[in-house]
Amino acid sequence: MTRPSNRAPNEMRRVSLERGVARYAEGSCLVKFGETHVIVTASVEERAPAWLRGSGKGWVTAEYSMLPRATHERTRREVTSGKPSGRTQEIQRLVGRSLRSVVDLKLLNERQITIDCDVIQADGGTRTASITGAWVALNDCVQWMLARQMIQSNPLKDHVAAVSCGIVGGAPVLDLDYAEDSSAETDANFVLTGSGGIVEVQGTAENAPFSEEELLSMLNLAKHGIAKLVDLQRMAVA
Amino acid sequence: MTRPSNRAPNEMRRVSLERGVARYAEGSCLVKFGETHVIVTASVEERAPAWLRGSGKGWVTAEYSMLPRATHERTRREVTSGKPSGRTQEIQRLVGRSLRSVVDLKLLNERQITIDCDVIQADGGTRTASITGAWVALNDCVQWMLARQMIQSNPLKDHVAAVSCGIVGGAPVLDLDYAEDSSAETDANFVLTGSGGIVEVQGTAENAPFSEEELLSMLNLAKHGIAKLVDLQRMAVA
Amino acid sequence: MTRPSNRAPNEMRRVSLERGVARYAEGSCLVKFGETHVIVTASVEERAPAWLRGSGKGWVTAEYSMLPRATHERTRREVTSGKPSGRTQEIQRLVGRSLRSVVDLKLLNERQITIDCDVIQADGGTRTASITGAWVALNDCVQWMLARQMIQSNPLKDHVAAVSCGIVGGAPVLDLDYAEDSSAETDANFVLTGSGGIVEVQGTAENAPFSEEELLSMLNLAKHGIAKLVDLQRMAVA
Amino acid sequence: MTRPSNRAPNEMRRVSLERGVARYAEGSCLVKFGETHVIVTASVEERAPAWLRGSGKGWVTAEYSMLPRATHERTRREVTSGKPSGRTQEIQRLVGRSLRSVVDLKLLNERQITIDCDVIQADGGTRTASITGAWVALNDCVQWMLARQMIQSNPLKDHVAAVSCGIVGGAPVLDLDYAEDSSAETDANFVLTGSGGIVEVQGTAENAPFSEEELLSMLNLAKHGIAKLVDLQRMAVA
Amino acid sequence: MTRPSNRAPNEMRRVSLERGVARYAEGSCLVKFGETHVIVTASVEERAPAWLRGSGKGWVTAEYSMLPRATHERTRREVTSGKPSGRTQEIQRLVGRSLRSVVDLKLLNERQITIDCDVIQADGGTRTASITGAWVALNDCVQWMLARQMIQSNPLKDHVAAVSCGIVGGAPVLDLDYAEDSSAETDANFVLTGSGGIVEVQGTAENAPFSEEELLSMLNLAKHGIAKLVDLQRMAVA
Amino acid sequence: MTRPSNRAPNEMRRVSLERGVARYAEGSCLVKFGETHVIVTASVEERAPAWLRGSGKGWVTAEYSMLPRATHERTRREVTSGKPSGRTQEIQRLVGRSLRSVVDLKLLNERQITIDCDVIQADGGTRTASITGAWVALNDCVQWMLARQMIQSNPLKDHVAAVSCGIVGGAPVLDLDYAEDSSAETDANFVLTGSGGIVEVQGTAENAPFSEEELLSMLNLAKHGIAKLVDLQRMAVA
Repeated sequence: MTRPSNRAPNEMRRVSLERGVARYAEGSCLVKFGETHVIVTASVEERAPAWLRGSGKGWVTAEYSMLPRATHERTRREVTSGKPSGRTQEIQRLVGRSLRSVVDLKLLNERQITIDCDVIQADGGTRTASITGAWVALNDCVQWMLARQMIQSNPLKDHVAAVSCGIVGGAPVLDLDYAEDSSAETDANFVLTGSGGIVEVQGTAENAPFSEEELLSMLNLAKHGIAKLVDLQRMAVA
Repeated sequence: MTRPSNRAPNEMRRVSLERGVARYAEGSCLVKFGETHVIVTASVEERAPAWLRGSGKGWVTAEYSMLPRATHERTRREVTSGKPSGRTQEIQRLVGRSLRSVVDLKLLNERQITIDCDVIQADGGTRTASITGAWVALNDCVQWMLARQMIQSNPLKDHVAAVSCGIVGGAPVLDLDYAEDSSAETDANFVLTGSGGIVEVQGTAENAPFSEEELLSMLNLAKHGIAKLVDLQRMAVA
Repeated sequence: MTRPSNRAPNEMRRVSLERGVARYAEGSCLVKFGETHVIVTASVEERAPAWLRGSGKGWVTAEYSMLPRATHERTRREVTSGKPSGRTQEIQRLVGRSLRSVVDLKLLNERQITIDCDVIQADGGTRTASITGAWVALNDCVQWMLARQMIQSNPLKDHVAAVSCGIVGGAPVLDLDYAEDSSAETDANFVLTGSGGIVEVQGTAENAPFSEEELLSMLNLAKHGIAKLVDLQRMAVA
Repeated sequence: MTRPSNRAPNEMRRVSLERGVARYAEGSCLVKFGETHVIVTASVEERAPAWLRGSGKGWVTAEYSMLPRATHERTRREVTSGKPSGRTQEIQRLVGRSLRSVVDLKLLNERQITIDCDVIQADGGTRTASITGAWVALNDCVQWMLARQMIQSNPLKDHVAAVSCGIVGGAPVLDLDYAEDSSAETDANFVLTGSGGIVEVQGTAENAPFSEEELLSMLNLAKHGIAKLVDLQRMAVA
Repeated sequence: MTRPSNRAPNEMRRVSLERGVARYAEGSCLVKFGETHVIVTASVEERAPAWLRGSGKGWVTAEYSMLPRATHERTRREVTSGKPSGRTQEIQRLVGRSLRSVVDLKLLNERQITIDCDVIQADGGTRTASITGAWVALNDCVQWMLARQMIQSNPLKDHVAAVSCGIVGGAPVLDLDYAEDSSAETDANFVLTGSGGIVEVQGTAENAPFSEEELLSMLNLAKHGIAKLVDLQRMAVA
Repeated sequence: MTRPSNRAPNEMRRVSLERGVARYAEGSCLVKFGETHVIVTASVEERAPAWLRGSGKGWVTAEYSMLPRATHERTRREVTSGKPSGRTQEIQRLVGRSLRSVVDLKLLNERQITIDCDVIQADGGTRTASITGAWVALNDCVQWMLARQMIQSNPLKDHVAAVSCGIVGGAPVLDLDYAEDSSAETDANFVLTGSGGIVEVQGTAENAPFSEEELLSMLNLAKHGIAKLVDLQRMAVA
């Protein structure tokens, strides 16, 4: 069984994390998983959402969008239909939850950090690339706040990164590109912390149900891939 | 560790599946998981979605809503804000995908079956109750179509049902009610077929990351619970 | 002239009013006019609308919706088009006005009671069933408030109930079901108080103008029917 | 009991109907009921609504709007909130129904006539003025079609006009202006044909229920007023 | 080269400015440029926009709309599509900017004046007619405020008026009507003050680029036309 | 008078035009005017807009958006408010018009080319950079179509480019950055063809009216700047 990209089953695409790509943002990262490219920025606002007023806690939220021609065929802008699609909302909820799992919200005080993930080019795995790059942007944002003494201690408790796995042609593989994603029997996204804890597992049978063994194979591939991503995050912010 | 409901960790709430509750629908089911009550209907339309025209295939889709006072506090109707929330869209996409995993869409021809899940009362687990009840409504709808010779063979290949699990107070438990759901460290939804294949796994760390062992404990609880739900589905349609 | 249901011209359908159907609401009623079934809930909020701030007065408002498959053919959810239809808005304004006509709003203080009417099954007369059931839900809500001493005196001054009449095949008849409603020459809705005062009359010629005599015949049928409905309300809350 | 305008209880405001006020429309009328001024136009489109395709029948529909400063205080444009208000929708449905009651839709073939009622100045009774003026615009539009032999026979079967009545200070009065409308105990709108048939009755208790006698008094005032309005329509189109 | 209207190249249409056409507004003007008729009103609100709170400055803003049958073919109401079109937004931004260029906003204190331009009939040049009439309505509104001592000094520093020019059949012409506007090679709108300063120039090549010479010819025509419009404004408010 | 950037009055920022930045688009260009960066793509669709069906002509249209953190302060995504702002609509209409002025639409046949301008970073002049870069993306798209013989002759008749000018501190300057744009007395955008024809002039007085002389000074600066931009376009596509 050969992968369209000739990668080994447990081989990720070339990943890069480039900081400081958005001149005006408190933190930013251009993350590339092969031909999937996402600009992630982190923006601090001195105002938490209404439902946190008086709680002393802050919030981290995320928004996600694709440029219309990030994809093979041009996609209609969501503003044209007046609302984000269900897919967009699922992704932005996932990115926000993933980041909050490694942030001590009390240490932010009543502030909000908004993570914007804008996909410049899409070849599969845009949500996992977004989460992985968002950690870098968020880290820079937090350092920016520490440097200005807006906060006293680092609210980032751990790394968090994400990767997709799938069952393609009967075999488990790591980090699907668009060609594999379209033909996969099963598609799963994993979000793990730097210390290996599971933050999110989302496995979906596309054509046929999958087994516990297949779930575990994919989880093991994900652990392997995410360990590499966390190393890259460490190097990026070193 | 006692559950608020005094149930054993692997004990589901009282489940009932009542057919024929909507006089005009081709299939319907009032599903109760304890105090969570959902009316599910199945409606046939002689028209598949535009992107299936000419393919000879049909479609199964789902919509989901809650009555404003299904919940402890009144919830604003989504029509008021002009669009379904992200949560609603996630759930209706999940219910649709789950049902399609056990339907041979070619046997429907170019027709659409719409599953409507309307939550009358909500005490946790509304999406898993919806999927479980939807299978019953869909089965009745398919029988109705067979009886009228609209279709020649049964497109339903298997049962499908769903249940939530969680890590509450450090221990894995089955079928969370609202009280447990609010305090769970981890919350996971499982959708399985009658033959035990996994259709969907969605595990989310709410307060702290979870481990592979915890994921497997929850999966085992889910297998146990879903086997019971499939038995109840069998009895309901017998 | 025989009615499709074989009822006498001045005979209502079987009506039932079942209290306490929504576990979390301050008041609730499942009202049935034959095959028309509506769940009505009453919810108190500790906040009057903005334009009443500082007035010391409260408000009673209503919302109305139908489950998509309440009807013979599936109806599109209104959230899909982003706004309530003209018909929905007319009905919710009518229900709100009808209830306010028997409530002393000053005795509520600056609170709002929201009446939600959700039609589970529709066979004609959903707005009149909604008003009739809403009075029961509102009464329970008010008793709940009195029991907690949120209010000192009962703001409900009288009963209010509603029924439709029509000219069908030239003859005035009471409480139209869907079959009659579709073929009526004239369709009229009456809302009356327990003491017989008229709160609302809405008569519409569907195919041909009607005469003063026909209007009066319908009003007399309505008085007869509403007297029965008020008796049923009295029994329900006794 | 004196009326604010010193009119007798059965006295209408000065009414005028001026034809041909919109250079490009097939029919138009500037209708004034005292200080209430409405521009009504009738526009033919060679296309009936989708649900009439193939039926051979046409349609008459109406839209209604107020200039923001038609009123004492500036009103927000409805486009700002993205949808017509409930009040606007009620009025445009009422105007459309009223006109259709005197049109033989088959004689229009599959065409639509749209009546636009734009309130330039509002002093109460904008909906009744709209209906009364709309008949004139519609009549001119129909004559325009007959002159071009688009239709062979006149589809207008009768006149239709409307007036409001109310119980103000305990007494029934005809054609309420804004000052009376704001203080009326009961407010009712009547739509009658030229031959005296009732097309629509809408009576609403604002502060206290009203009696059958009061309803009949208001109906008699309306008959009197509408007879005058129909005379004015006849003169306008003579 | 003859103009469709037989006007000389530097000849405007008949212009009239009628004050006081809206009984309830603080200022109003019915402006006619030939068959283009616009009702303009000015409304004071005791509240500046949120972003001016605390600045001590006021604001002047404008809204623009056309009656559906102002045009040869009926135009759909913008409320139907839920938002103002791009064209409408461009025009209302232009009208607002033009008026603010001659208002000392500090002298208004924290108040807003809203200019509503509603086109009753459209034959080209609706935006330039709107600006020209808006100055008259605004002037009356300001006098109304001075008379009530709401403001101490006149915030209107100068006149402002507007006219369109175009290159039609190779020749520069002043004040295009609809027939010319549809066939012009170039279309330009000029907004000038009473003292001849340029507030806005918007020149657009419709079919072929234009030259500096053509731009200057059009500017000279505009100066000529606007001087006449300012004279008419002076007479109107005298 | 020194410019904040120390540029000479007639000196543009460093401009670069990088082709082929979007792997899947038929044409693309990353255009930079100093710190203003815009990704422009050109996408062919085999379908002209509805109103061109049967005309044999094609269309070129444009859409424009900014990443939320392109700016100093984060800007809300327009999808959140459900519609593009007035500013966005003005810009996309301007970009579309500018490009169409140099395209022979008949040679496209019934196809549409959509130009997407997504601002990655904004430091003033995003609309002029968009137009300038769009010509390059459009040129590549047209070459792509010619290479595949989708069209027989080149529909691009000329270059088109744009630049802003302003009166800042009393002096005319070329190519304003954000700092100058915020303080300019007058702001003007010019769109010119390669052969020097004017496609669009938009001059706006921000604080004080401007004179004919100032308009001409700005036009001369614009001619100078656009000649350079056209040279850069020539080099980019050479």
